[in-house]
Amino acid sequence: MSEKIKPKTLPGFMELLPTEQILFNKMKKIIEESYQKYGFMPLNTPIIEDASVLLAKAGGETEKQIYRFQKGDNDLALRFDLTVPLAKYVTEYYDKLSFPFRRYQIGKVYRGEKPQKGRYRELYQCDIDIIGDGKLSIINDAEIPSVIYNTFKNLGFQDFTICINNRKILNGFFLELDLKDKAQEILRIIDKIEKIGSENVKNELLDIVKEKQVESIMEFIKIEGSNDEKIQKLEKMNIKNEVFIEGLEELKQVAKFIEMFGVPEDNFKIDLTIARGLDYYTGTVYETFLNKYKNLGSICSGGRYDNLTEYYSDRKMPGVGISIGLTRLFYILTENNLIKTENENILDVLVISMTEDYDVCAKTATELRKSGLNVQINVEDQKIVKKFKSADKIHVKNVIIIGEDEVKNEVVTLKDMISGEQETLKLKDAINKIKNR
Amino acid sequence: MSEKIKPKTLPGFMELLPTEQILFNKMKKIIEESYQKYGFMPLNTPIIEDASVLLAKAGGETEKQIYRFQKGDNDLALRFDLTVPLAKYVTEYYDKLSFPFRRYQIGKVYRGEKPQKGRYRELYQCDIDIIGDGKLSIINDAEIPSVIYNTFKNLGFQDFTICINNRKILNGFFLELDLKDKAQEILRIIDKIEKIGSENVKNELLDIVKEKQVESIMEFIKIEGSNDEKIQKLEKMNIKNEVFIEGLEELKQVAKFIEMFGVPEDNFKIDLTIARGLDYYTGTVYETFLNKYKNLGSICSGGRYDNLTEYYSDRKMPGVGISIGLTRLFYILTENNLIKTENENILDVLVISMTEDYDVCAKTATELRKSGLNVQINVEDQKIVKKFKSADKIHVKNVIIIGEDEVKNEVVTLKDMISGEQETLKLKDAINKIKNR
Repeated sequence: MSEKIKPKTLPGFMELLPTEQILFNKMKKIIEESYQKYGFMPLNTPIIEDASVLLAKAGGETEKQIYRFQKGDNDLALRFDLTVPLAKYVTEYYDKLSFPFRRYQIGKVYRGEKPQKGRYRELYQCDIDIIGDGKLSIINDAEIPSVIYNTFKNLGFQDFTICINNRKILNGFFLELDLKDKAQEILRIIDKIEKIGSENVKNELLDIVKEKQVESIMEFIKIEGSNDEKIQKLEKMNIKNEVFIEGLEELKQVAKFIEMFGVPEDNFKIDLTIARGLDYYTGTVYETFLNKYKNLGSICSGGRYDNLTEYYSDRKMPGVGISIGLTRLFYILTENNLIKTENENILDVLVISMTEDYDVCAKTATELRKSGLNVQINVEDQKIVKKFKSADKIHVKNVIIIGEDEVKNEVVTLKDMISGEQETLKLKDAINKIKNR
Repeated sequence: MSEKIKPKTLPGFMELLPTEQILFNKMKKIIEESYQKYGFMPLNTPIIEDASVLLAKAGGETEKQIYRFQKGDNDLALRFDLTVPLAKYVTEYYDKLSFPFRRYQIGKVYRGEKPQKGRYRELYQCDIDIIGDGKLSIINDAEIPSVIYNTFKNLGFQDFTICINNRKILNGFFLELDLKDKAQEILRIIDKIEKIGSENVKNELLDIVKEKQVESIMEFIKIEGSNDEKIQKLEKMNIKNEVFIEGLEELKQVAKFIEMFGVPEDNFKIDLTIARGLDYYTGTVYETFLNKYKNLGSICSGGRYDNLTEYYSDRKMPGVGISIGLTRLFYILTENNLIKTENENILDVLVISMTEDYDVCAKTATELRKSGLNVQINVEDQKIVKKFKSADKIHVKNVIIIGEDEVKNEVVTLKDMISGEQETLKLKDAINKIKNR
């Protein structure tokens, strides 16, 4: 025998066992169907793109993390998100699309991060975006939380909150405080409030702005009350800055229409601390938290941006979108025992042969499949104990056993693997029994 | 404005418009569900693997075509098929799996081929394999054509043939002719018979073997008749070689059980010219042809192999599997006008607002979605003509129009975009109408 290579999966790459994969796929399917309900159309762009296209905007961390390589004369890279490929796509196929253009894409992206618990180098993102041609109504910003709400409801979550803010309110407020130049830095600090607490935010702010300004900022981000009360308090601040006024008006519209799109008040909240990244978003921003696991961070985020295609085209294309990081979500749900994969199965029946007369076995499997069931057969030369051990291992609920007596009497033995009960009956009756379980 | 980067998709990468993507996804889903019917479990291995793992076996063309690159100290590569990752997976997770192990994987693989019409560098493969631990019953070889048959039936094909052969019959026959050393070369030539015709095969064979041997070979591969007649003729050749006898026995079993697994005789055929690659397959081999488009080549191929994991483990793991190259299949079906994407849609209704009172619009969309329909809204500040043009472009069948009169009278106007008919009615009645269309 030649020397063997050790088979190993690279660190930072999620690879699941079949039962886990079944659950992962189920979640992916629910997300996809939820997106379709809102009229988003599927796209599937390549994983490899020309490096110059992917890096049109990138810089800093992205550039360091990107998988980039030469093949022949080509400078290639793996996509690190689904937004840049969307910008490319919308520019490239502009004439063939109709706007507002709603697309979803669910696919893997690649980031060469330092591998650590819960950080992946290959990760699924599930994105939706609505892209306007020149302009895009604010009503779209109010519809997005409805997509988030229904997606997470469909995934089986009850206790979660969609947090909403508007970047223009923050920007306008900083303009008013004459802190325009420091706005980015302040936002970056405020963004950490969930992680480091308000005392630490205050201290960090004191390093860069005056005490009086810090007080104003802290007062602002601590505005409390119901959504309506928050809006009233913002109005009462009587800030004349145009950006602020525009942002407040947008937030009011979004808060109003969210309800009409069917999101219960319990599931959304205006949160003035949410800033969401640094320079990408320009209006509405979203984050979503599991109420009992807020420390896990946002499980669905996004927002409004002014111009998707600015690096590729002179056309102005505003958009609004969100992303669910499915690989990370699956990891945190598993780690926190919020999902269990052990009973996942897509198999309805295992047909086990205990005779070498395989004709009946094959015909039985064929009949079961024709009735709509998912069926595996095991005709291997194995002891019956081993065959049942396999059945246990794959968590199949129904086993049909075909031995010599069954063949002779034209019946099958059906075993319920959960109760352990076993009975001999006509195939037709076994099918009904299985289907009614 | 800064200089723009030209957005371009790399040559050899399929990128579809939404209506095309919808059809592509539909086909992918049908294939997946067909595979599940036979109890295959989903896997989703990483696209990037350690180069040493992927290249354990590779050589020649594979090594030249592979996308291989360094990231930090790591020597990485993109998978070029789904079989090598399966071998890795089965070795790595052996203890957690139950055998025979049935898995499907549908995913992208990467080959840096010269781009040319119909050749892709990023392509979807849809694979199933059944892996045995030590041994694997021949009955599995007979079940695989049933998967092929049902998958293509479910995809809407009628007129196709699954061609079956057994490599042992070919190998045994060459042993009998004392041509063992030239078997590989001869098989390679025979494999081309569909492409170059039997006269050219004959001429190429004459270059390497004696005329009398060529006559025997040509006689052998031209054995005619029904499947039963072919088997009878093979038996009558009275070849005593053990490999031949074993292969013939296997072929007989496969041909017998194929029928019991529900494959009509019209859809399968013993074809002694099929050799399927050079050294990978060791027993049963499969190819599948559209009868009217045989020149397009096999659309689903595979076979039996002795040892999936030989480069990673001392354990012997025989298997049998097939693969559908979905990207290529989609391409040839489109090129030959065998599928039409223009009417594909997943959208049921487009709600168009003709008033700035968006409340009713939002509530209407929400009601429609609650009833199970997929709904887009268009509340943009566009002329009605433009909105209808968009509706045409996305091929939506139902448009609901909400103007001031509709709001006032608590009704909606429903337009059938195919017939052009338009009527004003209660939302509830509109929903029923749409659902019954």
